[in-house]
Amino acid sequence: MIVVMQHGASEALIQEVVTQVKADGYIPAITRGENQVIIGLVGESKTGLHEENYATMEGVQKVLRVSSPYKLAGRDFHPADTLVPLNGSQVGGRKIPVIAGPCSVESREQIIEIACAVKEMGATALRGGAFKPRTSPYSFQGHGEEGLKWLAEAREASGLPIVTEVMDPALVPMVAEYADVLQIGARNMQNFVLLNEVGKSRTTVLLKRGMANTIEDLLMSAEYILSHGNANVMLCERGIRTFEKYTRNTFDVNAIPVMKHRSHLPVIADPSHAIGYSEYVIPIALSAVAAGADGLIVEVHPTPAKAASDGRQSLDYAGFQKLMDAVGKVAEAVGRSA
Amino acid sequence: MIVVMQHGASEALIQEVVTQVKADGYIPAITRGENQVIIGLVGESKTGLHEENYATMEGVQKVLRVSSPYKLAGRDFHPADTLVPLNGSQVGGRKIPVIAGPCSVESREQIIEIACAVKEMGATALRGGAFKPRTSPYSFQGHGEEGLKWLAEAREASGLPIVTEVMDPALVPMVAEYADVLQIGARNMQNFVLLNEVGKSRTTVLLKRGMANTIEDLLMSAEYILSHGNANVMLCERGIRTFEKYTRNTFDVNAIPVMKHRSHLPVIADPSHAIGYSEYVIPIALSAVAAGADGLIVEVHPTPAKAASDGRQSLDYAGFQKLMDAVGKVAEAVGRSA
Amino acid sequence: MIVVMQHGASEALIQEVVTQVKADGYIPAITRGENQVIIGLVGESKTGLHEENYATMEGVQKVLRVSSPYKLAGRDFHPADTLVPLNGSQVGGRKIPVIAGPCSVESREQIIEIACAVKEMGATALRGGAFKPRTSPYSFQGHGEEGLKWLAEAREASGLPIVTEVMDPALVPMVAEYADVLQIGARNMQNFVLLNEVGKSRTTVLLKRGMANTIEDLLMSAEYILSHGNANVMLCERGIRTFEKYTRNTFDVNAIPVMKHRSHLPVIADPSHAIGYSEYVIPIALSAVAAGADGLIVEVHPTPAKAASDGRQSLDYAGFQKLMDAVGKVAEAVGRSA
Amino acid sequence: MIVVMQHGASEALIQEVVTQVKADGYIPAITRGENQVIIGLVGESKTGLHEENYATMEGVQKVLRVSSPYKLAGRDFHPADTLVPLNGSQVGGRKIPVIAGPCSVESREQIIEIACAVKEMGATALRGGAFKPRTSPYSFQGHGEEGLKWLAEAREASGLPIVTEVMDPALVPMVAEYADVLQIGARNMQNFVLLNEVGKSRTTVLLKRGMANTIEDLLMSAEYILSHGNANVMLCERGIRTFEKYTRNTFDVNAIPVMKHRSHLPVIADPSHAIGYSEYVIPIALSAVAAGADGLIVEVHPTPAKAASDGRQSLDYAGFQKLMDAVGKVAEAVGRSA
Repeated sequence: MIVVMQHGASEALIQEVVTQVKADGYIPAITRGENQVIIGLVGESKTGLHEENYATMEGVQKVLRVSSPYKLAGRDFHPADTLVPLNGSQVGGRKIPVIAGPCSVESREQIIEIACAVKEMGATALRGGAFKPRTSPYSFQGHGEEGLKWLAEAREASGLPIVTEVMDPALVPMVAEYADVLQIGARNMQNFVLLNEVGKSRTTVLLKRGMANTIEDLLMSAEYILSHGNANVMLCERGIRTFEKYTRNTFDVNAIPVMKHRSHLPVIADPSHAIGYSEYVIPIALSAVAAGADGLIVEVHPTPAKAASDGRQSLDYAGFQKLMDAVGKVAEAVGRSA
Repeated sequence: MIVVMQHGASEALIQEVVTQVKADGYIPAITRGENQVIIGLVGESKTGLHEENYATMEGVQKVLRVSSPYKLAGRDFHPADTLVPLNGSQVGGRKIPVIAGPCSVESREQIIEIACAVKEMGATALRGGAFKPRTSPYSFQGHGEEGLKWLAEAREASGLPIVTEVMDPALVPMVAEYADVLQIGARNMQNFVLLNEVGKSRTTVLLKRGMANTIEDLLMSAEYILSHGNANVMLCERGIRTFEKYTRNTFDVNAIPVMKHRSHLPVIADPSHAIGYSEYVIPIALSAVAAGADGLIVEVHPTPAKAASDGRQSLDYAGFQKLMDAVGKVAEAVGRSA
Repeated sequence: MIVVMQHGASEALIQEVVTQVKADGYIPAITRGENQVIIGLVGESKTGLHEENYATMEGVQKVLRVSSPYKLAGRDFHPADTLVPLNGSQVGGRKIPVIAGPCSVESREQIIEIACAVKEMGATALRGGAFKPRTSPYSFQGHGEEGLKWLAEAREASGLPIVTEVMDPALVPMVAEYADVLQIGARNMQNFVLLNEVGKSRTTVLLKRGMANTIEDLLMSAEYILSHGNANVMLCERGIRTFEKYTRNTFDVNAIPVMKHRSHLPVIADPSHAIGYSEYVIPIALSAVAAGADGLIVEVHPTPAKAASDGRQSLDYAGFQKLMDAVGKVAEAVGRSA
Repeated sequence: MIVVMQHGASEALIQEVVTQVKADGYIPAITRGENQVIIGLVGESKTGLHEENYATMEGVQKVLRVSSPYKLAGRDFHPADTLVPLNGSQVGGRKIPVIAGPCSVESREQIIEIACAVKEMGATALRGGAFKPRTSPYSFQGHGEEGLKWLAEAREASGLPIVTEVMDPALVPMVAEYADVLQIGARNMQNFVLLNEVGKSRTTVLLKRGMANTIEDLLMSAEYILSHGNANVMLCERGIRTFEKYTRNTFDVNAIPVMKHRSHLPVIADPSHAIGYSEYVIPIALSAVAAGADGLIVEVHPTPAKAASDGRQSLDYAGFQKLMDAVGKVAEAVGRSA
């Protein structure tokens, strides 16, 4: 932490900050410029006074943070890539898994059929929502535990592990009984009660970036999960909210290399939500792989025009087959495989 | 709903849409332009096929929504202002209540002292967090139920009703035992499990806008609460996330008249979070009142530089007194009182 | 400037930075933390190596800027408010001028009529565009020099000074012959060729914030004008672009107190563009005055439904009269007058 | 255009709109829903009353646009891809050109050396700024016409065509004498005076998207150029401004397939500005190619730490060689070549 004093702050104010710095257990390192004094805080504080408190002191212009706040999710103290097991392979390694399936689990037959179909075309895992976060209370909210049971049947039929969303902290143990991967949706990325619960679980977590959350926020939310003892976290970029109106979200492809650089956790991309229109999902999936994504999660539905949710962004089977073919080629071009 | 066909869509595709429209129980109204056909859907659907499904049909360019999706929160079917009782007066009426207090409940003594102090200076209610949503798992998370008990003691000492945040759906009944108003924080605005729970409660709700959420999203989240039977909802504008870096958030003052126009619910402004720096809180509070806000919620701390959280944006007592004086004058200038 | 070295950067890399710092004429002040070294740069550089160059050196994590880059527009070296003369009073003083008029100058009769009408209702200056920046090449582009002549006639008829936009650097001298205030539109805020030209002029400039520009960008654009010798610059907040769709722009009312704090230049607000719908212009105008704006610029048209541009956000005469009455009251509530 | 009347608008107000619609030369198509009336406007208007005017009429809730406003830049009336000649190949075809060079032309020797180096490594054209738009008036502004002369010498030495920015409308003919491609920078994307001038030129234009501009805005700016008779326009995605702070801009990779779908013009990507840090430029370049970009423009400097501008995002020669190798592989994976 570096405290920048105001232009022309009095010596008395400077000394007050220095006194506080020492009281907090840091060693102050003072640099006197021509117009301004800056005070570096060396060491670790025991007492917990933080950036904001210093920023509030009289005579202080601003406080600059030097080190990153995510100790467990960051690479500084954990340089090697984390590999998360999924269906016999490891997410974060050479192979790029594709998680595919419908937005919502609509019926037992539907999910079993789709599971077998996407398995056949090369999917690594099955996605499908039993609990659906919907902007409107009047939209379809999912089939709940019954949907989870159908997912489990689909796993048996297809051999694909299950990725499904959990929204209610109280239901984490129940959902974890059925799921191989617990998905935290974008709208719950800073639902800290929920993060704590999945942190206590030992089931792998797919953590989606919130639509107004910075990369730093996402890594801090991963930190919540990691700090509760669950080491198997996958980060997911799914688009952020901007002023652009021709697409549902803006896919922040920049976030992929940045997260790979700053964190050891695997990074999954969700091209379906990232752009919101099925006709553009393939190029966006390819862009993610080319940028270094460790995996994809894609919405697939046999008849998108009849889907209970997200039909507009779902690939049909022919589209998914095309995606798998194209992903394989781009993956190889960047030294990986799909 | 209006379905706009693509430029030059074939008659066969147009008829497929028309057939679907009829199957869904609407009456189709077809307008043939020179290059494009548009199909209006008249009536209410029983079967639930929605915008997105039509948008997915072949030959469709886009689907335009005509009516607003918030039936309960909107003014179309509820033109009169909703008045929410608070401490003997009514939020949404002529008087502008000011809810004041610290970000976090730090100790029994602290919260009682602040309650009495802000009461003395004219506050209508006391705010204070016992459960704190924090970006970092290492930041102070609040004192939990003990904090709620201290809040209850502060109410007794000061006579001020309590506004406090609930984050965990399972704790809604417990928090509601202590609180007069349940606050839903910005990060939980689309935590639908939590919205459903406070909807089932009969305690007034203060619903904060999420930092990437549109006004429409906020009204839809209010709709969740209202549709579960809780009619006492106050909307809260607290700043949205933009590219601007000199302030913590961007206060969307535009949202105030827009929400007053579209919804019958009272609108509260939170100038503390909206700008994030105490030296600017007063002008922003005044701007909110001038724009038609029905109330304010403000962070106040006797020694902001020692606050456990949000010190940088908290007013001290002298600042709060100044705010109350200034708010009174601006309120009168716009035909209200504080 | 502060150079933050990477976690565990070698001594050799640290010394390379130190050597460069000295070569550039700064005195290096080194602080050694437990994991990281930071190097403060004391003094002024003669050679011009900048932030980005240091950030590019091996072993450097980031470079933090300490002082603000706007020497002439900032308050550090110019603490007193700049007062800009306009129609006998001074913008930036106690009185809040209201600049009013149509978006476009549509005809000689129109502009003279409006000028007299808004003068009658208390306007301080007349706005009106002769050169119109339009998103579409097919929209009305303004009457050009003829429009300027009509504006000059309107000034004679009404006594109101003229505020009008200049878009073409080559036309600055010509427009300045007719105008009392040269407006730089939002889309040209970083048109540096144009900024240089109005900087060489001695006519007052109203500089509008670009829709994706930070407050810092705006102050840097003012710096362009000031550094060419034109001291009479008024900053204008007119809304920024965000994800919100119910309004045309998002009025960044926060920017008003922030700019007043950081700069000595007067701040004008444009509620018409800031929200984009006439029914909300008055509350937004009042919010600006309450937040400390030094003036307003408002679109007024006798029959908005027939306006050649921006009709949707223009007040009619009755609306403008209402605005003037309301502004006067709020201005007094904050210790000023309209 | 579709006019949506307010919920419960009176018959008299509906008839007023219908009368206006007819007066404007459209045929009105009225659809009466249960709560609302909508009026479709069939045909083309002669008189020029526009969306905004209808939106301003009493009783109108909103006006929805059906057709896209870019007739020349859009695909509706121009379905085939436009191929823009560049150095013997055609931008928009199978081959993906890479335009490379420094941000600024720093000296005669520098630009000749870089030109030959990037040519050797496979670049198709040379970029380099002689006129530099800089946020600060104190930053290096470029060498002006002398820089253009050096660029011309570099063309002779290397055989590479020249891409360089023009900022001043008055200098378009002069810059066009030296340049093969005129670049319009992001800050000038809505500098309509400049767009008109390059539209009158017959030199190819590279039009960069502004940082707060939608895809629609960009296509409308292209429309300005096309409507003045210059058909050789290349669109350039270079990142937009969002709340994310770990990168300089947010690369809107979504825009690539969307623009290819809506427009026939070739789309170039600028990964250097899009992310702003050289260590991430290669993955972003690859993501652009995978998403369907028709070309790349990349900043290359032999010693980025000494660059006069944009060093932080410039590749050195080794980096550029790596980029060329990687781009070639990804291009082939998507059926193209580099």
